[in-house]
Amino acid sequence: MAGGAAGQEREALLNAGERVLNFDWPMIRVGTGEYADGPTGVTVFHFADKVLGAVDVRGGAPGTVNTEYLKLGYDLPEVDAVVFAGGSWYGLEAATAVASAMKEDGLRDGNAFSAEPNIALSVGSIIYDFGARRLNEVVPDKRLAQAAFRAARPGWFPQGAQGAGRMAMSGYFFGCNAMSGQGGAFREINGIKVAAFTVVNAIGVVTGRDGSVLACNRDPEWPAGVDTAQLLARTNGPEGIGSTVADPAGTNKNTTVSLVITNQKLSPAELNRLAVQVHTSMGRGLQPFATQFDGDVLYAVSTAEIEEPVLTSAEIGALASEVMWDAIIASVPEQPRHPEPRPGLKLDRGLLKQYAGRYEFSPNVSLEVTYRDGALHARATGLRDVFAIGRDRAITLTPVNETEFTVGNRYPLTLRFQPDGPLVINPGHWQQVSRRRLPM
Amino acid sequence: MAGGAAGQEREALLNAGERVLNFDWPMIRVGTGEYADGPTGVTVFHFADKVLGAVDVRGGAPGTVNTEYLKLGYDLPEVDAVVFAGGSWYGLEAATAVASAMKEDGLRDGNAFSAEPNIALSVGSIIYDFGARRLNEVVPDKRLAQAAFRAARPGWFPQGAQGAGRMAMSGYFFGCNAMSGQGGAFREINGIKVAAFTVVNAIGVVTGRDGSVLACNRDPEWPAGVDTAQLLARTNGPEGIGSTVADPAGTNKNTTVSLVITNQKLSPAELNRLAVQVHTSMGRGLQPFATQFDGDVLYAVSTAEIEEPVLTSAEIGALASEVMWDAIIASVPEQPRHPEPRPGLKLDRGLLKQYAGRYEFSPNVSLEVTYRDGALHARATGLRDVFAIGRDRAITLTPVNETEFTVGNRYPLTLRFQPDGPLVINPGHWQQVSRRRLPM
Amino acid sequence: MAGGAAGQEREALLNAGERVLNFDWPMIRVGTGEYADGPTGVTVFHFADKVLGAVDVRGGAPGTVNTEYLKLGYDLPEVDAVVFAGGSWYGLEAATAVASAMKEDGLRDGNAFSAEPNIALSVGSIIYDFGARRLNEVVPDKRLAQAAFRAARPGWFPQGAQGAGRMAMSGYFFGCNAMSGQGGAFREINGIKVAAFTVVNAIGVVTGRDGSVLACNRDPEWPAGVDTAQLLARTNGPEGIGSTVADPAGTNKNTTVSLVITNQKLSPAELNRLAVQVHTSMGRGLQPFATQFDGDVLYAVSTAEIEEPVLTSAEIGALASEVMWDAIIASVPEQPRHPEPRPGLKLDRGLLKQYAGRYEFSPNVSLEVTYRDGALHARATGLRDVFAIGRDRAITLTPVNETEFTVGNRYPLTLRFQPDGPLVINPGHWQQVSRRRLPM
Amino acid sequence: MAGGAAGQEREALLNAGERVLNFDWPMIRVGTGEYADGPTGVTVFHFADKVLGAVDVRGGAPGTVNTEYLKLGYDLPEVDAVVFAGGSWYGLEAATAVASAMKEDGLRDGNAFSAEPNIALSVGSIIYDFGARRLNEVVPDKRLAQAAFRAARPGWFPQGAQGAGRMAMSGYFFGCNAMSGQGGAFREINGIKVAAFTVVNAIGVVTGRDGSVLACNRDPEWPAGVDTAQLLARTNGPEGIGSTVADPAGTNKNTTVSLVITNQKLSPAELNRLAVQVHTSMGRGLQPFATQFDGDVLYAVSTAEIEEPVLTSAEIGALASEVMWDAIIASVPEQPRHPEPRPGLKLDRGLLKQYAGRYEFSPNVSLEVTYRDGALHARATGLRDVFAIGRDRAITLTPVNETEFTVGNRYPLTLRFQPDGPLVINPGHWQQVSRRRLPM
Repeated sequence: MAGGAAGQEREALLNAGERVLNFDWPMIRVGTGEYADGPTGVTVFHFADKVLGAVDVRGGAPGTVNTEYLKLGYDLPEVDAVVFAGGSWYGLEAATAVASAMKEDGLRDGNAFSAEPNIALSVGSIIYDFGARRLNEVVPDKRLAQAAFRAARPGWFPQGAQGAGRMAMSGYFFGCNAMSGQGGAFREINGIKVAAFTVVNAIGVVTGRDGSVLACNRDPEWPAGVDTAQLLARTNGPEGIGSTVADPAGTNKNTTVSLVITNQKLSPAELNRLAVQVHTSMGRGLQPFATQFDGDVLYAVSTAEIEEPVLTSAEIGALASEVMWDAIIASVPEQPRHPEPRPGLKLDRGLLKQYAGRYEFSPNVSLEVTYRDGALHARATGLRDVFAIGRDRAITLTPVNETEFTVGNRYPLTLRFQPDGPLVINPGHWQQVSRRRLPM
Repeated sequence: MAGGAAGQEREALLNAGERVLNFDWPMIRVGTGEYADGPTGVTVFHFADKVLGAVDVRGGAPGTVNTEYLKLGYDLPEVDAVVFAGGSWYGLEAATAVASAMKEDGLRDGNAFSAEPNIALSVGSIIYDFGARRLNEVVPDKRLAQAAFRAARPGWFPQGAQGAGRMAMSGYFFGCNAMSGQGGAFREINGIKVAAFTVVNAIGVVTGRDGSVLACNRDPEWPAGVDTAQLLARTNGPEGIGSTVADPAGTNKNTTVSLVITNQKLSPAELNRLAVQVHTSMGRGLQPFATQFDGDVLYAVSTAEIEEPVLTSAEIGALASEVMWDAIIASVPEQPRHPEPRPGLKLDRGLLKQYAGRYEFSPNVSLEVTYRDGALHARATGLRDVFAIGRDRAITLTPVNETEFTVGNRYPLTLRFQPDGPLVINPGHWQQVSRRRLPM
Repeated sequence: MAGGAAGQEREALLNAGERVLNFDWPMIRVGTGEYADGPTGVTVFHFADKVLGAVDVRGGAPGTVNTEYLKLGYDLPEVDAVVFAGGSWYGLEAATAVASAMKEDGLRDGNAFSAEPNIALSVGSIIYDFGARRLNEVVPDKRLAQAAFRAARPGWFPQGAQGAGRMAMSGYFFGCNAMSGQGGAFREINGIKVAAFTVVNAIGVVTGRDGSVLACNRDPEWPAGVDTAQLLARTNGPEGIGSTVADPAGTNKNTTVSLVITNQKLSPAELNRLAVQVHTSMGRGLQPFATQFDGDVLYAVSTAEIEEPVLTSAEIGALASEVMWDAIIASVPEQPRHPEPRPGLKLDRGLLKQYAGRYEFSPNVSLEVTYRDGALHARATGLRDVFAIGRDRAITLTPVNETEFTVGNRYPLTLRFQPDGPLVINPGHWQQVSRRRLPM
Repeated sequence: MAGGAAGQEREALLNAGERVLNFDWPMIRVGTGEYADGPTGVTVFHFADKVLGAVDVRGGAPGTVNTEYLKLGYDLPEVDAVVFAGGSWYGLEAATAVASAMKEDGLRDGNAFSAEPNIALSVGSIIYDFGARRLNEVVPDKRLAQAAFRAARPGWFPQGAQGAGRMAMSGYFFGCNAMSGQGGAFREINGIKVAAFTVVNAIGVVTGRDGSVLACNRDPEWPAGVDTAQLLARTNGPEGIGSTVADPAGTNKNTTVSLVITNQKLSPAELNRLAVQVHTSMGRGLQPFATQFDGDVLYAVSTAEIEEPVLTSAEIGALASEVMWDAIIASVPEQPRHPEPRPGLKLDRGLLKQYAGRYEFSPNVSLEVTYRDGALHARATGLRDVFAIGRDRAITLTPVNETEFTVGNRYPLTLRFQPDGPLVINPGHWQQVSRRRLPM
């Protein structure tokens, strides 16, 4: 279901999503919030009790709250929540808002009443999810994060383009520009539980255990069935590198943020080792990974529900790395379909003229659609391009059916008109809705 | 004067303070916000252009936003603001809120319109300023921080217990428990400008260049004129250590957060060296410093207005260390006076009875004042003590004058009654105001 | 052929190895030294000019020299050499010895003669290559490292169990205990050169791009053609984890040390990003990787021969990651063959009696071989087991041919006797040679 | 008296020094080695049992062995020795040599015989002690370090210019160029022992608790009794900074390396906090400290002999910081006296002519002394100046007595001739001895 500003405030979609991971672990409570008119979102992991946390910061453009404290190695469960959000650095407001909510709701206070630590410790990281990938700069905020926190419930996680992964993308390195999302996975072996969660917004391509590319708008010139190893081999060929990675539109900002949790009690040193090992292992499911243009951060948590050691940190790490790979795979949402124009379709001139007009997506992004010579033509008129439709000259729209048009391109692009209504670009989960201005 | 909730919302005091540092540096804009009914506050340093930043995390209990990014050594001015706040980890909301304000106000956006970085980068750290030191858990929030940001103006900084330093304290290590604050200083030599700012909430004692203790509720048994070296020598004596540092009330949480700025262009490596050198030098003005129970963080910024090197990083560091020591000294506010009971003062029984009643400071902190045998007696009735007035038994109040009473103690404690009004504890800058409940 | 102490001093084998990578890059000079009677060794990378270096320490048990300096981000070429060695922490003597050699040879001095840095900067790391994997504690030392340094020559690298990789092993996590080594690879694209070198002593298994296990003494119960993904799946099965990773013999010490070099000039921040990206990518070729029981360290170097940027750090990183995977694959040496006893072989009693005796491998490791009932029996008599031959009871040796015997085991074990000579265990590249003591 | 090459090998002075700290702590064994003809040296701290270690790297030019391992926070006593040495990065050979010696001597082996860690862990750091401060590049080496290790004995530490501090200097920032050394101090309070050791080679000036400058060749123009605060104030004055810090001769390389030890068991996190706190506190006794031109490193060790906590890390830190300040003060050696020429002294022409000649201090450093016009004249003829005697023109020597001459200078400089013997510059503890070449 779609958003749009209803009345004063933007509507917050809570715990949305059809594809859900269920797991038996009351300690882990998950809530998500989304603003559909970004879209963008936030995912809150709230632990029923304070837990021990560690962090591994690996990427070249991280945004973080409270990582420093996690590095000091205290053997004290202090972490209440891990928060992931879209919105780049602006989304860090979500992480701080969850701590505030815990205080407002009386779960934590100011440490006034006991010698025990009772200040909420909320840590978190963000992904970059705007720029050229959408036509507005809506970001998750305090209000959305607190709503998500309050909607959290145990043993549940929505897979795909939900929560913080609502507008995630992947594969920019190869020009894939696939839609991405958040993924989770869980295993229990001999009483040891491991859960892994990740918001995949990687410059790399999501790769299956057989090496297959799991999400990509493939270059039509690629051979059929190209896998990640072949893509990398091509990239490294004499003409390969540099051809697809140029970044004129400033979209070259990526980040994968992750969380791994075990119920075995680990020392701070062991938990830190677990974080490093699992984070490193993610270079298998995301290729390349941890580049300068990613801001990868992984949090590791031990709930310490199992106090006696069953596995070494390396064993939990190997297990958790497999679970994390499952989570990476689970993050891939169903991709938008490519519009297929009906051959020979001729639309009525009167209908086309009704579609002509000026459509505004956000203060600086507008599209001007004109009728001329039996066809619709579109040109971006604001400060930015509208995806493949540039600002320098009008481009002819190809009709797909009576209401939908497209522009031939590697990437799916659908413009759906309504005679008296807004223009919706890429109708569906990631749609961009415009307001109609005065007709030309 | 001071706040209390006016209508719906808490009143935000902006840019308050009498003692002000003025300096000629348009790049540095400072704004402060305070909630008097904490009290607590926030200080925002907003740079007119993006600047290069570095960070040195030194203490054992830091709270931080976006320090990780500063550590990667990119030679790119990215920092928009440094934010310091009270409220412990809750106060980090202030740091994230300033970035949001920059976006809301159109100063920064989502990097959509250019290849240049145009996402607001707000970094920040917090001090612990509640617990046993006040009777409520009011903390700085998004609203206060954004108001302070919008009130920022160049070349100006309020000294003492203002902004983020509104409820700072110092010297807990020696039982000083002095009121503290924020300090700033500035020097310009041969065109090189250096400014230093610090919010001193140190477990250590503020020390002058001659070794003198600059803020302390001294132990009556200490010899007159005791200096820091002597205090440390005593501490280390056979009975010394451990006697004053026990922490039954959970107040043993401290942090000094600092900022040093130069206008000479420095490389990322040099700027990092500057941060380390200046932070280390603060161990002179604050003794001890950088303990496990401090969360010390220092940010270093180069505005790069002077592009040609004039001084080495070590020279700027030596200069900035002296400026920082000036800032530490400037942070000390005028201390509250010790109440001096008038000898032989006898108050009218009727008046005393009017003062009896139940006073609530916050949901969990209340004081019950009763009349008995010609005197007032007080007992804390909530979950916490009311400073020196405990919960286990009533304590007799000593009249200071017709409206004020005290309890004999190393630390100043004044209770000011009004026949029909609230009880105010320690009237003045750090006062705690109660609501009066039904009389007994 | 192999060493043994000749006269006073152990023989140093320099630049040994049949399988060689040749590459066109005069800046990179490589020399290796080996003590065959360990065996153990050292590999020296000496740069013709000082180069910029960065380091990524990832594993849980590193041994390092001078990594701290590389982290400070100075934009100054300072590194002269990267040294890898066996011998665990003892092998660090090799890294410091190379700097000494540069001074002794007059390549560097004490910075006395110019304002330019002229002190040799040799950095390095080690692998663990003794313990249960061989019967002595011979380690690389100053003498061996200096000899290797002086034997260095450009554009050349010996692949497999040579140099620092002379006694490397891999795959302990799955019980593979395969012989391993050092690998190198090189590519040049559009003038950008990338070389990668690694000494693979990983707890993980060496994995090809198709997921295949490239070196492993496979468990006979494993299905044919098992690949790494299946091994990990088994490991994580209900009974899997923990069964093979127990470490009674203290062999659970591993480390992969690596070096990546590019000729494009990179800033310190970019070079650091390159190190992180490539190191992370190695989790594909080594699974698991970067565990608590590895001490993984990767150095990254820019020779800055190409001053104008051609590729981004992420692109060089992707390229270098592929080159590094090639290097990992190239590290695998030809594995020792499993001895195949000739069915029905009966050896002469007189011959067998000539083999009986006490064989000493090192002061604390001895084997007692006795004749009884038509067969040879062996028992370890020192402080340690002799591979599969324990100290608690004698085990019957199975004849392979007239001079060789074996013990049925997952791992190849060959004992070659000579009537009047020493017993050699696993004759060949990793052989263990004993001295014969008085017969029983 | 001092060394010089005796026969083949340089003489190693072991455990030299008159001024000694004695303390009751069998766990701490100290040995020193010196080459007088540098001079330079090494100091070895060998712990009777393995201990828990932490490290704080603070300076801008460190040289280190095995610091990475100490940062991982394992709660396992692993450290055998801390080694400090002169020789800049070349001196790191000393640190690795001590581990080798422990293996050679059978104290540690290759972990072959037990599951317990039994590999020697020797960590260490170096100071820069050559360049313009002496006329040769003799450095501590494996042989010297192993001899010092084997000479180590408990409860003993030589103060001043001994061991690693043999050629240390301090105060370069203010042009002091004072001779420095190593210092140690010890206290025991309520059963808690704290020892601190430091090799002071700081760019800053050694400062007493009253602010006094403890070692400096003062500028004749400074007011009498100038203290550190005044020096810093001058430095920061309009003309101050930069005037004394220029570094034409490349001497601007400094480093203070330190060790703090307590017998109370601390967790890894607490021990790390202790390291940070004590290191920071050293900014009081050395001003400035931790600059880009220092390579400061501090190791912290807990012997865990007292298992029950008596003090917090902050308390031990405050205590240890005072002990460290004592150690800094104790490091100051008796300074060389300034030669005072006897007024009106006229030396016999024949005697002077006997002194004329060419004197070689090391391959690249020579002094040519000629007789002309009733006086001696000297000029450096090698690649470097000979302290204040440059290479561009001859300078007249002023006779002090029959055998000693000087050159007017802020810094003491004495040339002692012998008719048929070598020229000794600055005879005494830091003397530079030449070989006499053919007379002119």
